[in-house]
Amino acid sequence: MTWKPNPKYKFTFGLWTVGNVGRDPFGLPTRPDLSPAQICDLVGEAGAYGVNFHDNDLIPIDATAAETAEIKRDFTAALKRNKLKVPMATVNLFTEAVFKDGAFTSHDPAVRAYAVQKTFRAMDLGAEFGAKIFVLWGGREGAESDAHKDPYIAIQHTRQAFNLLAAYNIEKGYGYKFALEAKPNEPRGHIYNAVTGSYLAFIQTLEHPEMFGVNPEVAHEHMAGLNFVHQIAAALDAKKLFHIDLNDQEFGRYDQDFRFGSANLKHCFHLVKILEDYKYNAPRSFDCHAYRASDFEDLKWFASGNMRTYEILADKAQRWNTDKDIQALVKKITAGDEKIAKLLKSSSKASVKSIAEASFDRHELANKRLPYEQLDQLTMELLMGVR
Amino acid sequence: MTWKPNPKYKFTFGLWTVGNVGRDPFGLPTRPDLSPAQICDLVGEAGAYGVNFHDNDLIPIDATAAETAEIKRDFTAALKRNKLKVPMATVNLFTEAVFKDGAFTSHDPAVRAYAVQKTFRAMDLGAEFGAKIFVLWGGREGAESDAHKDPYIAIQHTRQAFNLLAAYNIEKGYGYKFALEAKPNEPRGHIYNAVTGSYLAFIQTLEHPEMFGVNPEVAHEHMAGLNFVHQIAAALDAKKLFHIDLNDQEFGRYDQDFRFGSANLKHCFHLVKILEDYKYNAPRSFDCHAYRASDFEDLKWFASGNMRTYEILADKAQRWNTDKDIQALVKKITAGDEKIAKLLKSSSKASVKSIAEASFDRHELANKRLPYEQLDQLTMELLMGVR
Amino acid sequence: MTWKPNPKYKFTFGLWTVGNVGRDPFGLPTRPDLSPAQICDLVGEAGAYGVNFHDNDLIPIDATAAETAEIKRDFTAALKRNKLKVPMATVNLFTEAVFKDGAFTSHDPAVRAYAVQKTFRAMDLGAEFGAKIFVLWGGREGAESDAHKDPYIAIQHTRQAFNLLAAYNIEKGYGYKFALEAKPNEPRGHIYNAVTGSYLAFIQTLEHPEMFGVNPEVAHEHMAGLNFVHQIAAALDAKKLFHIDLNDQEFGRYDQDFRFGSANLKHCFHLVKILEDYKYNAPRSFDCHAYRASDFEDLKWFASGNMRTYEILADKAQRWNTDKDIQALVKKITAGDEKIAKLLKSSSKASVKSIAEASFDRHELANKRLPYEQLDQLTMELLMGVR
Amino acid sequence: MTWKPNPKYKFTFGLWTVGNVGRDPFGLPTRPDLSPAQICDLVGEAGAYGVNFHDNDLIPIDATAAETAEIKRDFTAALKRNKLKVPMATVNLFTEAVFKDGAFTSHDPAVRAYAVQKTFRAMDLGAEFGAKIFVLWGGREGAESDAHKDPYIAIQHTRQAFNLLAAYNIEKGYGYKFALEAKPNEPRGHIYNAVTGSYLAFIQTLEHPEMFGVNPEVAHEHMAGLNFVHQIAAALDAKKLFHIDLNDQEFGRYDQDFRFGSANLKHCFHLVKILEDYKYNAPRSFDCHAYRASDFEDLKWFASGNMRTYEILADKAQRWNTDKDIQALVKKITAGDEKIAKLLKSSSKASVKSIAEASFDRHELANKRLPYEQLDQLTMELLMGVR
Repeated sequence: MTWKPNPKYKFTFGLWTVGNVGRDPFGLPTRPDLSPAQICDLVGEAGAYGVNFHDNDLIPIDATAAETAEIKRDFTAALKRNKLKVPMATVNLFTEAVFKDGAFTSHDPAVRAYAVQKTFRAMDLGAEFGAKIFVLWGGREGAESDAHKDPYIAIQHTRQAFNLLAAYNIEKGYGYKFALEAKPNEPRGHIYNAVTGSYLAFIQTLEHPEMFGVNPEVAHEHMAGLNFVHQIAAALDAKKLFHIDLNDQEFGRYDQDFRFGSANLKHCFHLVKILEDYKYNAPRSFDCHAYRASDFEDLKWFASGNMRTYEILADKAQRWNTDKDIQALVKKITAGDEKIAKLLKSSSKASVKSIAEASFDRHELANKRLPYEQLDQLTMELLMGVR
Repeated sequence: MTWKPNPKYKFTFGLWTVGNVGRDPFGLPTRPDLSPAQICDLVGEAGAYGVNFHDNDLIPIDATAAETAEIKRDFTAALKRNKLKVPMATVNLFTEAVFKDGAFTSHDPAVRAYAVQKTFRAMDLGAEFGAKIFVLWGGREGAESDAHKDPYIAIQHTRQAFNLLAAYNIEKGYGYKFALEAKPNEPRGHIYNAVTGSYLAFIQTLEHPEMFGVNPEVAHEHMAGLNFVHQIAAALDAKKLFHIDLNDQEFGRYDQDFRFGSANLKHCFHLVKILEDYKYNAPRSFDCHAYRASDFEDLKWFASGNMRTYEILADKAQRWNTDKDIQALVKKITAGDEKIAKLLKSSSKASVKSIAEASFDRHELANKRLPYEQLDQLTMELLMGVR
Repeated sequence: MTWKPNPKYKFTFGLWTVGNVGRDPFGLPTRPDLSPAQICDLVGEAGAYGVNFHDNDLIPIDATAAETAEIKRDFTAALKRNKLKVPMATVNLFTEAVFKDGAFTSHDPAVRAYAVQKTFRAMDLGAEFGAKIFVLWGGREGAESDAHKDPYIAIQHTRQAFNLLAAYNIEKGYGYKFALEAKPNEPRGHIYNAVTGSYLAFIQTLEHPEMFGVNPEVAHEHMAGLNFVHQIAAALDAKKLFHIDLNDQEFGRYDQDFRFGSANLKHCFHLVKILEDYKYNAPRSFDCHAYRASDFEDLKWFASGNMRTYEILADKAQRWNTDKDIQALVKKITAGDEKIAKLLKSSSKASVKSIAEASFDRHELANKRLPYEQLDQLTMELLMGVR
Repeated sequence: MTWKPNPKYKFTFGLWTVGNVGRDPFGLPTRPDLSPAQICDLVGEAGAYGVNFHDNDLIPIDATAAETAEIKRDFTAALKRNKLKVPMATVNLFTEAVFKDGAFTSHDPAVRAYAVQKTFRAMDLGAEFGAKIFVLWGGREGAESDAHKDPYIAIQHTRQAFNLLAAYNIEKGYGYKFALEAKPNEPRGHIYNAVTGSYLAFIQTLEHPEMFGVNPEVAHEHMAGLNFVHQIAAALDAKKLFHIDLNDQEFGRYDQDFRFGSANLKHCFHLVKILEDYKYNAPRSFDCHAYRASDFEDLKWFASGNMRTYEILADKAQRWNTDKDIQALVKKITAGDEKIAKLLKSSSKASVKSIAEASFDRHELANKRLPYEQLDQLTMELLMGVR
C-alpha cells in the first residue's frame, strides 16, 4: 500500500495499539511482541504523525537503568528515522496487582501515593520525549459493588491526586495539559467519572481547572450507548477538547477497540464532521487494536485503514457542506425569524419582557416543514458514495 | 393498608405518576383519568408529603380562564384536606406537536421563544402553589440523526433559554432553584445532555450557576447502564443535588419507570444509603407509574410500595452502619498510614516532594487483604433480611 | 422523485408504517390520520409491491357492517389502481385494554379464547385479500415481573393457541404460512420468546411445525444487541424464513423502527447480502415509521428511502462478490485441505477414527494468515463507495 | 465459617472458577495459581458436591505423560478425601492461538478436525473421572465482522462437529449428555448461537437430538439484557435443561461472572423458584470467579456465598408458595372459566368451532382485577426478609 495520510490531521497511535499481541480474557497472544522501535517503523511506514505511550509501554516496570537507557536510545533513533513526534504520554495505573483496589481511589493511602509518584515519573518520561498532553485514564477507579467503597470519598481522593499532579506540572515547568479519559465500566464493574460529561464537571472543582481537559474515546461512550458526537460538542463548547481517542465499538459491549469506522459508520461520519467543522487541531489519536486473527502484515492494513477511513469521511463531510440539495434542505430547516433569534441571545429585562408578552400560535408553529427523512436519506446516500 | 410513611423523608409524587392511565406506545389506556384533586386524595391517604406537577398536568393547555379557576380551587382544597405541599413544579415541553423538533433547541426561533414563554408561565403557576424547585427535563432536545441538527448550536440555544429563565426568576423574585434532569434517549434517539454529569458541567457555563442544580432520575441513568449512586455522589460533591426522582429500571431499556426498588434492589439499597449517609434533605420524589394491568385499588399499593421500600432500605442502611461484622470489615479495609493520607490532602511543594521521593514496594502493597466477597455477601444477606 | 424500485424485490409496507401519525410515549400525533386507501396511493406512487395489515389497521375494531363494507370497497379499489398485493396479514393483540395481561398468555381463559377468536377473524380478513403469510407478534405476551406469571405455563398457553390457529387454517383451507415474530421487550418488560431462535425452537413442539416459520425484525434483535444476520442464517438453515421485517435500530434501545439502513449501515449491508446470496424470495417488508418531525411529503422520501437503500446495498453485495481484491482474499482465507473437509462431512466410524488418530501441529495451524483487517477495510471502502 | 450446604442441591464448581487468578484484559494476576487438588480441598471444605473441568484445567496442554499421571493421581486423591464427584467435563477450544478464527467454525478444515479431536480426548478424560454431562461452549465461534465468514456455512460446520461428537460418544459408550452453552458476544464481537433458544432450535437439526440439551448461564443471557428465567422455562418445556451455570451479571455488560445473587437479586430469586418448582435435578454449577481484589481466604467466602445465597432464595421461594396473602392474590389472578380453559387445550374441530362462535365482551374482560403492584410489592418484601 503506497497511500499516505495528510500530515495536517496529526494521526497518532499509542504504542499499545499496534503493539497489541492479541491476548484477551479467554485467549493467549496470537502475535509476537514488537519493540517500541519496531512499532515506530510500522506506523512510520504507514505515514503517521506520531506515537503515544504509557510509561510501561516504553520502559518495563522492572527495567534496570542500563536497559532503560538502551530502550530510550533505540526509541529515539526510531522516532527520528520515521519522523515521528510524541505529542501525548500517559501512565499505566491498571496492570499491576498493587492497583487491584484502584490507584488514586485505593483505600490504602500508600497505594494512592504510589500511584501519584508513578504518574510523576511518567510525566518526567513523557516530557523527555516532548509530550505536551498527558492523558489520565482511571481504569481501576471504580467498584464491582458499592459495598466496597464510598463513591463520595473516592471523589475526594481523585481530586487530591489531580491537584498534586497539577502542582508537580507547575513545579517542573512541563507545561502539560491533562486530558481526562472517561469510561463507564470494564475492567471495573462501574468506573467513577463514567462519561466525558462527568469529567467536564469535575474539572471545575480542581485547583487548576485551566490545566485540565478531556480525552473522549469513541468506544467508551458507545459502551453506554451514548452519542459520542454530543459529548464532543459539549467538550468543544467548554473549550476542553484537549485530545481525542478514535476507534469504533458497537453499543452496549465490552471494550472492543475496533479500527475507526468499522462498526458505527454513521456516527463516525458525524464525528469527523464536527471535528473538521469546528477545526479541532490537536492530534487525532487512534486507540484501538487489530483483530486477534491479524498478523504483522495485516497490522499495516489496520494502521492505514484507520487513517484512510478518517480521510474518506473528512472528504464526505466536506461534500455534505457543499452538496446543493443537502444545503438547500439545511437552509430551509434552519430558517426562522431573525428578530426573535436575536431576542433569545440576551437575558436582559427587555428580552424577558418581549418573550413573556409575545403571542404565539402553537398549531401554526407546529406546521413548519422538517423534511428529516429526505435529509437523512441524502446523507446516507452521500455516505454510501452514490451521490 | 394502614401503614403510613415517616414525614421526615418528604415523599412526593408527580400528578402524572399516580395519574398515569396506562397508555403505552402499543396500547390504549387501561385506567380512567383521575383529576388532580382525586390524585391528591389518593396520595394523601397514602401519607405522602406532597405532589409535583407539570403545568399541563394541572391546567390543560387549552383550558379557559373559568376552567382554570375551578381546577385551581379544587386542587387547593384537595391539597389542604390532605395536608399536601407542592415543593416542585415543572413544564411540559414535549407533548405538543409544536415541540416535534425540540423546545429550547428547535431550529425555529419562534418555537424556542414559545418554549421559554411557556416555562415562564409554568413558573408562575408553580410559584402560586409555593413550589421552590423547578425541574427542567428536555425530552425533545435531541435528535434521531445528527444530520438534522448541529449539537454544538443546540448547546448555545439551551444556554440562552436557561439564562432567560434565571433572569425571569430574579425579576419575579420567585426564588426558584432549577433542577436539571438528564436522560440519554427516548423519546428522541439521543437526547442532548445525556447524563447527570453533562448537566453538572453545563451549569458552570450559565450566567447564574448558583441557581442551577440537578434532578437525577434512577431510570434515566440505568437506561444507559450507568451506576446511579456514582452520579449522586458527584452531585453531592458539587452541592448540586437539588431534587431527586426515584423509581426503578432495568439496565439498557426503554423508560420503564417502575416502582422504586422493584427492579435493581441492590442499587436502590446503595442509593438510599448514600442519600441518608449524606443527609439529603430535599424531597424524595417518586417519578414512576403503576403496571398497565393495575387498577385504582392497586394504585394505592403502588404509592405505598414506593415509600415502604424506601423506608425498609433506609432501615437496612442504618443496620449496615452498625452491623458489627460489617463494620469490622470496613475498618480493616479502610485502614492505612495516616501520615501518608495527610500528605495527599495538600498539593503544597512539601507534599509533592515527599511523595516524589518516598519509597514504595508495590508487591508488598499489593498484598493488603481486601475481603470483598465476604463484605458483599454480608451486605446481600443483610439486604435479604437473614442477618 | 421519479425513481422506482425493482419489482423482483417484492417490497411491501404495513399500513401502520406509512400510516403512523407520530404519537409516542411522550407526545401527541404530529401527522393527520391517513385512510388505508390514501396509504395505498402513497406506497403505490413510490412503486411498492404490496401492503400488509393488522385487522384493525384496515377495519376499526368497532366498525359497523356498513362501515366495514365501505372500507373494503375503497381499499380494494386502491389496491387495484396502485397494482398492490397483500401478501401478509396479521392481528392486533396489543392495543386494547383487554390484552393488558397478555393475549394468548393471559391468566384469563376467556381472554385467551377471545384472542384466538380475534385471530381467526383476522385470518378471514387476510384471506379475503389474498394474503398467504400470517404474522403473529405477541407484544403483550410477557411480564414486567415474574411474580405475576409462571413463564412455563405461559409456554403451554401459547402452544394451545398456535395449535388452534393451525387447525383453523386447515379447516378453512386458507393455506397460510404462520410467521412468528420475536421481540425481547417493550411494551412488556420482558416478552416471552424473546428472540428469533426462541421461536425456531418452539415451532418444533407444535402440532403442525411445517406450517410455522419466523418473521425476524431487524430492530427487535438489535434491541438486545444481537447480530441479526446470524439469526437470519439460522432461519435460512432451518428453512423457516417465511417473511422478514426490515427497518433499523441502534443496539440496546427502545423500538426505534427507523428507515432501513439509517442506523447500522454495516449490519444492513450484510443482511442484504445474506438475503440475496441465499435467494430469499418472500416479500421484503418494511416495518418502520417516519421521524416524528416528518410530514406527508417527507413520508414519500421515507417510503422510497427504504427501498433505495435496499437496492443500493444489494448492488454493493453483488460488487463484493465480484471485486477481484476482495475475492482473492476470500479465496485465500477459505482455502484448506479438501480431504479433511470431506472427512468432517461424515460422522461415520471411519471419519471418527481418522480424525481421532490424525496428527496436528497446533502451532503450525495457528500460523495461517487471516488478513481480516484488510478484508474488512476493503469491505468498508466498498460500502462507502470509494472502491 | 462452619455453615455447610444441603447435598440435595448438588452444588458444583468448575476448577477454573475458584482457580481464577484475577487476570483481566487490563491487569495481571492478583492471586497465585492453585493446583486442581488445592481447589478440591477448598471447595470440599466449603461443602460442595463436586467439581467440573475443561481438559486443560486439569492437564496442561503440553503436559508429558509422567506429569499427566501425577496430576491425575493427586486429583483423584483430592476428590476422594473431599468426597467430590465430577458430574461434568468440558473442552477448552478458546485459549490457544490455533482457535483465533474459531474451532468447529474455523475456515481451516484442519483446525476444525483438530478441535473435534481435542474434544474427543476431553471426552475421554471426563469419562475417566465419571462425568456424564459434557458441556460445549463455543467462545471462538463467531465474528467481529461478517465480512470474515459466512454465518450460514458456520452453521453447517458446527453441525458436522456435533454429529461427530455424538458418533464418538456412541462408539465409546460414554453415555454423555451434551449440554450446549450459548453466549451472545465476548470474546468474539458476535458469537453464533447467541442465546439458549438458538441452541434449542439447532439441536433439532442434529443426527442425535436426544443426546443434546442446553447449559444456560445466567451471565450470558444477561449480557444481552434477556430474561434468563424465561429461557429456563423454554428449556424445561423442551426437556433439554441438562445442566445450568449459575452466577450473576448486570445487563448489557462484558462477562462479569459475579457470585450468584450479587447483582440481580430479583431475577436470581425467580430463577431459583423455577428450578425448585419444576424439580430440576441435575447439578447446580457455579460458573463465576471472585473479585480481583480477593485473596485465598476470601475465596472461601466466595464459594460459600454462592451456595448460601442459593439456599436462602430456595427458602424464600418455598415461603412464597405458602405465604397466605401472596397465595390469595395468585389464586385471584389465575382464576378463570374452567370450561373455556378446557376448550383451549384441544385443537379439535369442536374446540375451533366453539371458540370461533363464542361471544365475548372485551370491555368486560378488560375489567378483571390484576393487583400486580400489590403482588410484586409483597414479593419484594418477602425477598427483603420483612414479611
